[in-house]
Amino acid sequence: MRIVVVGGVAAGMSAASRAKRHDPSSEVVVFERTEWISYGACGLPYVLGGQVDDFAALEARTPAQMRARGIGVRLRHEVMGVDPVARTLTVRDLASGRTGQEPYDQLLLATGVSPVRPPWANMDAAGVHVLREIPDGQAIEATLQGGARRAAIIGGGYIGLEMAEALRARGLSVVLLEQLPDLAGRMLDPEARQQIRAEVERQGVDVRTGVTVEGLTARAGRVTGVQTDAGLVRADLVLVAVGVRPNVALAKMAGVRLGRSGAIHTDARQRTTVDGVWAAGDNTESVHRVSRRRVHVPLGLAANRMGRVAGINMAGGDARFPGIVGTAIFKVFDLSVARTGLSAEDTAALGLDAVQVDVSSSDHAGYYRDACPIQVRLRAERGTGRLLGAQLLGHGDAVKRVDVVATLLHGRGRVQDLAELDLAYAPPFSTVWDVLLVAAGRLTALI
Amino acid sequence: MRIVVVGGVAAGMSAASRAKRHDPSSEVVVFERTEWISYGACGLPYVLGGQVDDFAALEARTPAQMRARGIGVRLRHEVMGVDPVARTLTVRDLASGRTGQEPYDQLLLATGVSPVRPPWANMDAAGVHVLREIPDGQAIEATLQGGARRAAIIGGGYIGLEMAEALRARGLSVVLLEQLPDLAGRMLDPEARQQIRAEVERQGVDVRTGVTVEGLTARAGRVTGVQTDAGLVRADLVLVAVGVRPNVALAKMAGVRLGRSGAIHTDARQRTTVDGVWAAGDNTESVHRVSRRRVHVPLGLAANRMGRVAGINMAGGDARFPGIVGTAIFKVFDLSVARTGLSAEDTAALGLDAVQVDVSSSDHAGYYRDACPIQVRLRAERGTGRLLGAQLLGHGDAVKRVDVVATLLHGRGRVQDLAELDLAYAPPFSTVWDVLLVAAGRLTALI
Repeated sequence: MRIVVVGGVAAGMSAASRAKRHDPSSEVVVFERTEWISYGACGLPYVLGGQVDDFAALEARTPAQMRARGIGVRLRHEVMGVDPVARTLTVRDLASGRTGQEPYDQLLLATGVSPVRPPWANMDAAGVHVLREIPDGQAIEATLQGGARRAAIIGGGYIGLEMAEALRARGLSVVLLEQLPDLAGRMLDPEARQQIRAEVERQGVDVRTGVTVEGLTARAGRVTGVQTDAGLVRADLVLVAVGVRPNVALAKMAGVRLGRSGAIHTDARQRTTVDGVWAAGDNTESVHRVSRRRVHVPLGLAANRMGRVAGINMAGGDARFPGIVGTAIFKVFDLSVARTGLSAEDTAALGLDAVQVDVSSSDHAGYYRDACPIQVRLRAERGTGRLLGAQLLGHGDAVKRVDVVATLLHGRGRVQDLAELDLAYAPPFSTVWDVLLVAAGRLTALI
Repeated sequence: MRIVVVGGVAAGMSAASRAKRHDPSSEVVVFERTEWISYGACGLPYVLGGQVDDFAALEARTPAQMRARGIGVRLRHEVMGVDPVARTLTVRDLASGRTGQEPYDQLLLATGVSPVRPPWANMDAAGVHVLREIPDGQAIEATLQGGARRAAIIGGGYIGLEMAEALRARGLSVVLLEQLPDLAGRMLDPEARQQIRAEVERQGVDVRTGVTVEGLTARAGRVTGVQTDAGLVRADLVLVAVGVRPNVALAKMAGVRLGRSGAIHTDARQRTTVDGVWAAGDNTESVHRVSRRRVHVPLGLAANRMGRVAGINMAGGDARFPGIVGTAIFKVFDLSVARTGLSAEDTAALGLDAVQVDVSSSDHAGYYRDACPIQVRLRAERGTGRLLGAQLLGHGDAVKRVDVVATLLHGRGRVQDLAELDLAYAPPFSTVWDVLLVAAGRLTALI
C-alpha cells in the first residue's frame, strides 16, 4: 500500500503521521514544494513582529523527525500532474529540474491555498510581498533588513491586521488599504469592525477604506508605491493580502468535484468524488454544523483535523470530520477578537429569525486590578432559543471564552442552556456572573 | 404581600432584587446583621493583598441603591427567631438593642455560612482572625496596620492559600499550618495539591502539613503564637481558616429539613420543607448534575443564582435552580487552578469506573512569547465516555478553559464530543490543538 500526500504542512503532515501510525506496513510519501514542512503558518506575523525568535521555531516537526517515523519526505518536489486511472503522479524535483512518475494507491491532496495576486502592474517588483509560506516571511524579513521604512498593506483581513501590528512593532509607518468600507471582512458584524478600525488607528496605522488599488509603482525594479483611486500611497514595502484561493489545479486534473466555494468537495471521511483520491485542509470545504451548509473556512485546526481523518481512512481506518462551527480568534494590537457560529449577515442570508443582545462587562471582577472591559454579542433563534453565534471583543485571553459558545453550538444547544452553566468564578478570572451568563440571561428573556 | 429576606449578601440581595422586579407591588425587606450588603466576599483577600483599593469597592450595590429600587434594607438588624405558624420573625436592632416582631408572607433564609471556630485557648485574643465578612477583613487590616510581622495561617484551603499570598504581598513572614497531609483540601487530586504546595513554598511560605493545632498562645490579650503537636509557631497575626459551617439556627427553629451535609434541603425552586420558608445561598445544598447527589458547595455564582430563583418564586414566578457541576477556580501566587465535575475521590466514592489522562501542553502556541505550561487531567466513564471531571493547572487566565468541560458536564456530554469541538485557535491564545482537545483525544482512545 503506497499512500502519497501532496503538501507537507498542516493537513498533509497530520495525514501522513496518522496513516503511518494506523498502518505501519504502508509506505507513506509526502511531496512538498518548499523546504519546510509541518509549520504553523499562523505564526508568521509573530516571527516578523518579533514575538517568535525565528522561522524555524514554527516548524512543529522537522523532515528528519518525520523520516525517523518511517515517512518519506521529499522536499522541493512539486507535483505537476495526476492520472487517477493509472494512479500515478508527475513530480518535478525542483533542485535537479528532473520530472518523473510516482505511483500511488491512495492520494491525498493537501495543497492548501495560495494568496490571490491581482493583475496589477509591478507585482513582481522587489519589496512586493504576499504572506502564506515561510519563504514569503523570509522575503519580507529581507525587505525589512534592507531598510524598508514605509509599508502599505493591501487588504484588511486577518493577515493584513496582524501584519499591521508586526510592521508597527518593527518601527515602520503603515498605511492599511481596504476596498470595503470596513476592516476584518465579513467574519464580524459591522460594529465590531469599527472597533477594530479604531484600535488600529489608535496604534498609529493610517487606515484608508473604500479605496480601490489600481496598480503598483516601481523604479529600477523596486516598489515605490500603491496607485489607488484616491491617490498614490508611497511605500517601500507592499504586502498584498487580499484573500486566498484554494489550490485545486491537481484536483481539476483528477476530475474531482469542487464545491460552490471553489474548494474541494469531500464526504465526512475526506473522500473526494474520485476513487483513491482524498482531500484535506485549506483546499477543502467543511460542513458548518450550525448552518448545515458546506463552507470554505481555511483555518489551522480544521486543516489538521481533516488531515488526521484522511490519514486514518487512507490507511484503512474509519474516522469522520465532525464539521466546524465557525470559531475564529485573533489579536490586533491590544484588542482581542473572537467569533463563533453565524454572523448577522449569515443569519440574514439563511433566512433565520435571529435575536441578539450586546453586553458590556468586565473580564475579571470589576474591582480587581487587572480587570478590562469585555463585550459580547450573542445571537439565538427566536422562538426556539437555539444558539446561532457569538462575537467577543476584549483584552488578552478573555475572549477565549468564545469556546463555551462553540461547545454549545457543536451540540445545537440553546441560549437557555448557556444561561444555566456553572462557569468558573473567582475575582482574578471572572465576574460572579460571567459576561457569557449575563448575555445569555438577557437573550433568554427575548426569545 | 410581604417578602422578608434574612441576610443581605449574595443570595439575599439577588433574591430581593428579583422579587421586587417580578412583583413591584410586593413589599420586600432585607435584614442584614452587618453594615454591608451585596458585597463580593471572594474579593476580601485581594483588598488585603492590595489588588483592590478598599473594602467599599467590593459592594456591588449600596443600601441607598437598593432602597431606590423600593427594597427595604435594614442594616445591623439580626434575626433572632422565627415562628413559621404565625409567620413572624423576632428581630433585634443591634444599634438600639431593641427587639421586635416582624411579619412575613414569604421568608427567605439567606444566612450564609460562618467560619468554624475551634474551641482553642485564646481564640478571642487580639490578632486572631477569621475571614468571611467585610468586618473580618477590616479587623485583619487593623492588625496589619498595627505592625504585624509574623502570620500563622491555620488551614490550607482556598482562604488560607489566598491569604498566604495576600500576607506575603504585605511583607509578612507566613507559616501555613494544615492538619491534612496536603493543601487545598479534597477539591483537587493529590498530584495537584503537591504542585500547589510547591508553588506556595517557592514564594517563601513556610508550609507545615500533618500538624495538629492544640491552642493559641497570648500575652496581655494579644496573640503570640500557635501551639501545635510539632511545637510552637510564633505569630502576631493568626488567621483561622479551617472551614465553614452553614448558618442554620433559624432554619432549625422553623423546623426546616436539613440535608446530610448539614446545609438546608430545598427543592429546585429553593422551597424548604416548611410552607412559606425558602432558602438560598451558601447555607443551602444544591444538586450536583454529574453525581446527581445533593452537595454543599458554598460558592458565589451558585449563591447568586439560587437567590434569583428564590426571589422570582417568592414573588409568584416560576424559576428553577439548574444545579451545579462542581466548577471552581482559584489563583495562588503564580499558579492558577481550576476544576469541574468529580474528583478521583468523588468517583471512587460513587463507585464509578473512571479512566483519566494527564496532558501537559502550552497555553499559547509553544513558539509564542508568552506561552506558559498548562496541565490538564481529564476523567470520563469507562465504556460510555461520559465526562466526569477535569482539573487544570496553569498560569493566568489559561485555566478558565475549564468552562468548556463544565459546559459539556452540564449536558452530560461525552469525551468524544470534547475531542471534536471547534475551539478557537491563534498563536496568542492557544496551540492548534488546544490542550483540552489533546486530552480528550487521548482519553477517547482509552474509553
